[in-house]
Formats: sequence, C-alpha cells, structure tokens
Amino acid sequence: MRAAVIDGKAIAAELRSEVNLKAQDLASQGWQPMLISVSVGDAAASEIYVRNQQRQANSAGVEFEARNYPAETSLEQLIGILQGLNADPRVNGVIIQRPLPDHIPVKVLQKAVHPLKDVEGMHPASIGNIVYNDLALGPCTAVASVEILKTLPLQMEGLNVTVIGHSEIVGKPIAFLLMGLGATVTVCHHMTRSVAMHSRAADAVFVAVGKPGLVTGDMLKPGAALIDIGINRIETPDGPRTVGDADFDSCAEVAGWITPVPGGVGPVTVATLMKNAVLATRLQMDHYRDAYARTDV
Amino acid sequence: MRAAVIDGKAIAAELRSEVNLKAQDLASQGWQPMLISVSVGDAAASEIYVRNQQRQANSAGVEFEARNYPAETSLEQLIGILQGLNADPRVNGVIIQRPLPDHIPVKVLQKAVHPLKDVEGMHPASIGNIVYNDLALGPCTAVASVEILKTLPLQMEGLNVTVIGHSEIVGKPIAFLLMGLGATVTVCHHMTRSVAMHSRAADAVFVAVGKPGLVTGDMLKPGAALIDIGINRIETPDGPRTVGDADFDSCAEVAGWITPVPGGVGPVTVATLMKNAVLATRLQMDHYRDAYARTDV
Repeated sequence: MRAAVIDGKAIAAELRSEVNLKAQDLASQGWQPMLISVSVGDAAASEIYVRNQQRQANSAGVEFEARNYPAETSLEQLIGILQGLNADPRVNGVIIQRPLPDHIPVKVLQKAVHPLKDVEGMHPASIGNIVYNDLALGPCTAVASVEILKTLPLQMEGLNVTVIGHSEIVGKPIAFLLMGLGATVTVCHHMTRSVAMHSRAADAVFVAVGKPGLVTGDMLKPGAALIDIGINRIETPDGPRTVGDADFDSCAEVAGWITPVPGGVGPVTVATLMKNAVLATRLQMDHYRDAYARTDV
Repeated sequence: MRAAVIDGKAIAAELRSEVNLKAQDLASQGWQPMLISVSVGDAAASEIYVRNQQRQANSAGVEFEARNYPAETSLEQLIGILQGLNADPRVNGVIIQRPLPDHIPVKVLQKAVHPLKDVEGMHPASIGNIVYNDLALGPCTAVASVEILKTLPLQMEGLNVTVIGHSEIVGKPIAFLLMGLGATVTVCHHMTRSVAMHSRAADAVFVAVGKPGLVTGDMLKPGAALIDIGINRIETPDGPRTVGDADFDSCAEVAGWITPVPGGVGPVTVATLMKNAVLATRLQMDHYRDAYARTDV
C-alpha cells in the first residue's frame, strides 16, 4: 500500500476543540449554542446518529436536546413545531433526522427551518449562499469532505478534481466549494459516458454515490487523493461490514491519500455540524444585536 | 465555414410569443404581469438596456415601468423602496439595473427583492432552488444559454460540456442547469492549468469570461457546439464593434454550431427575463390563492 490513510477522527477532534473555544466565548456572552434534534416516528431508525451527535455536541461545548414526535404527527403540526423553534431565541439550530414517515416530505421540513438556524445547510438559501461564496451554513457532508482535502499538501488553485455523484446536498455543493477555492472541477454521475476517463485525469477524486466498489485503483492517477463519502452496509463471510464507494485495497495501491470508511468523512461531518451550530449562534447574536441597535436610534 | 450560426433573435421571438400567450391568460384572470425597472443615478448608463427590455416586454404582453432614483439615494431608502415593491400586489417582478453608484452594493439590493419577484434570478434562494432542480426563477443569462443548447439536435444525457468562466450568476448556474439535464460538466476559469485540454474534449463549450478572442478554433473538437456569452466592445479600423469571447472566424471553421455576438445569447436573455416575469406572476397568483383558500377554511 502506498497511500497515506487520512485520519478523519483526528481531524474531527481538532475541529471540535476549536469549536469548543468559540462555544465557550459565545456562552460567556449569554449565547450558549443549542441544537434541537427533531425525529418523527420510529426513534430506533435514527438512534445511532442522534446518540453520536449528542456525544460530539457535549465534547464541542454545544447543548443538544433530542425530541421525538409520534409517527402520526401531521406535516402542518411539524411545520408549526419548526416555526416555534425558529422563534425561540434559546434554540440556535435544528436538525431534521432521517428517515421520516412517508407522509412527511423532507424538503418541505428543511425549507421550514429558518436559514439562520439551518445548521445542516439544506435550505435553498444556504445552498445559494455557498454558490455566492458567502460565509454561510454549508451542507455538512460536502463541507467536511472539502475540509479534509484542504488538510493535504496540495495547491487548490488549478487542481484538477473529479466529483463522482451529483446529488444536491453532496456532489453539487462539493463542486462549487472547490470552484470557490480555484480548482477545476468535473462532475460525473450515472449518465457520464466514461467516469474512468475523468477520474484518471484528476489530482483529487470525491465519490458520493452509494455503490460499494465503484471506484477501483485503475481509475485513479498515481498519487491522487481519494475522498470516499459513500456509506454502505455489506454482508461478508465474517458478518456485516460498513464500506465506502471505493475498493479500498486496489485504490490504496495507487492513490497518494485515501479516506477510510468508517473513520474518514463521517466523523468530520458531525464535527462540521457542531461548527455550523457555533456559526449559526454567532450569526443570530449579530442579527439580534443589529436589530436592537436599530431600535435604539 | 462549416458551423451553423445559431439565430438567437429567432429563438427569442418564438419564446416571446409563447410568453405572450401565457401573459394574456394571466391577464384574463386579473393578473397582468408587470415589471418594475429600478435604476439609480445616471440613467444614460443603462438606458440602452432599459429601452430594449421595455420593447421586448411590450411584445411579450408584459407591462413595464422604468423608475430612476437620484444618485444620492441611500441604501436604506432603496431597500425601503424595494420592500414597497415587494408588498405591492400589482408588481410581479423587479429588475435592478447596473451600474449602481459606488455606495450601493448590488448584492444587498438583489437580496432585498422578494424571491417570488426575483425575475433576474439573482437571490441566493433562487440560485439554491436551481441546484435543487426546482421549478424556479433562474438567472436569465445562464437559463438562456442552456435553452439555446437545447434547441440543437444533441442528446443532453452524458454530453461532455466544458464551461469556461465560473461566475456566480453565469458559469456556475449553467453548470448545474446542465447537470440537471444529465450532462457531464467541467468548469474552467483563470486558474485552470489548461483550458484547451478541457475544451477540446467537450461536445459543447460555453464561454462567459469577457475576453475577446479567448476561445480559438484549435481549442474545439470538430463539430462541437459553441455558446458565446461574452459581450465586449473593441476598437477596429472600421470603428468600435461588439464581439464575444470567441474568435468567431477560426471557431466557425471547427464548430458544428456557433452563436454570433451580437444576435446570439443576448436576445434570448431578454426573452428569458419576460418568461421569468410570467412565471413569477403565476407563482404569486398561486401563492395568494393558497393563502386565501386557507383563511376560508
């Protein structure tokens, strides 16, 4: 194996300790960052994620409260609940846990969270702000993936990057975050004629498709960075395992750097959620102070 | 010359006649589409554009009113004016003419236009909606450029496209509009190591940089489509001329299709503004009707 394996847990730990300092500073000004997790129906489905977020929130100095609503809660009721959280100055961010019951369209809920409390970075206005290169609450997985690339000794300006997967919340935001850093970006997907042609030309490859083994070593340029965003549960003779979208062994022979799954993008994504919580709190503090200053005039 | 020259005026005329039918239908329901043009300071700077928009609005069945405010109008006053237009149900769209005086940041004004009246498609929420592939008010130049490509007999799914220029309101939105259609998109810019390497691999090239002669025939694959979005005034021995970013003569020898400047993307952009005016009016009509229906319950 020639690739250096990127330690997502270490990157996440460093990020959380930076976030913790900012959270303490905000708390000392009366603005303790506070997240609310909203899940609907069967709590077991999202329990692992919620517990993990809770733990990481604690270590980042962010308060965290999980609320579970019954499966039969109506869309109108949930929107009302979100409007209540939007209006509550003690709440700085809202997380909508997936999966949701079939009668609740996730996008409608995500749009109902106020953009200033959109710590998951899913609101259309949050996505648009990223396109505009504004300091904004970006979608956590995309931001985390790009942050990992930035830890490597690569010059971003002019870097040739291929993104495989063009989802609205991962592939596309990664593409414009990278454009904002000066990279030359190609986005491939299931309709692309030859993904390998594009991936072999790239200094860095991001893959976020959800297909184990999709990227193999022969699809990479020697020394390239490979950021694997996929999370797939597969059956093996030794029992179930979690793997990414890359065939790790063959890719690690060719790549210069590679993220493992688990232990790569995942932990940095949760740390980014905490970073967004602190950023959201600061934006809200500034917003309220501006508003008060104006009425004082 | 082997390239077919794309007739932007004909595409625009057809689009305007479709828009006109929809405008009449809306007018018959009491929702005559109506645009307000806002310019600040020296009206002469934007006069050509405003007059052209006025003419095209007339032919598309859209009412148009140009308002000019003195150069010394403050940002706060202008935001107040826009909030008034946002609240006025007879106004369906607001156009912010450029250039603005130095003390007026254009982005702040664009954000102050309500997303439902954002006929220029510049609000972050409008940009974000495009990323989400939602029916939305897209940035006119980007939408027009993609509409032109769609008139050609090319299969969009899997098409290799290179976009040169990564501005927030042209290059990037073109990229995700094309991704939404299934194309494989590479975005190049001034930091790209070799633009020619990417453009020669492409079935279609979009260029929006503002540099005359940037794209030459040897940078194209034979038979490719070239959509030239640049608008540059240059001096020639025969007097000033308007040209695009492509060296037209050498590109026309290689390309399969090429847009002229002027007469290519420009007219389709203004027709797209009118299409947005009608779409915005329909969205507002639906929004008001939903609101009334709810209070009736």
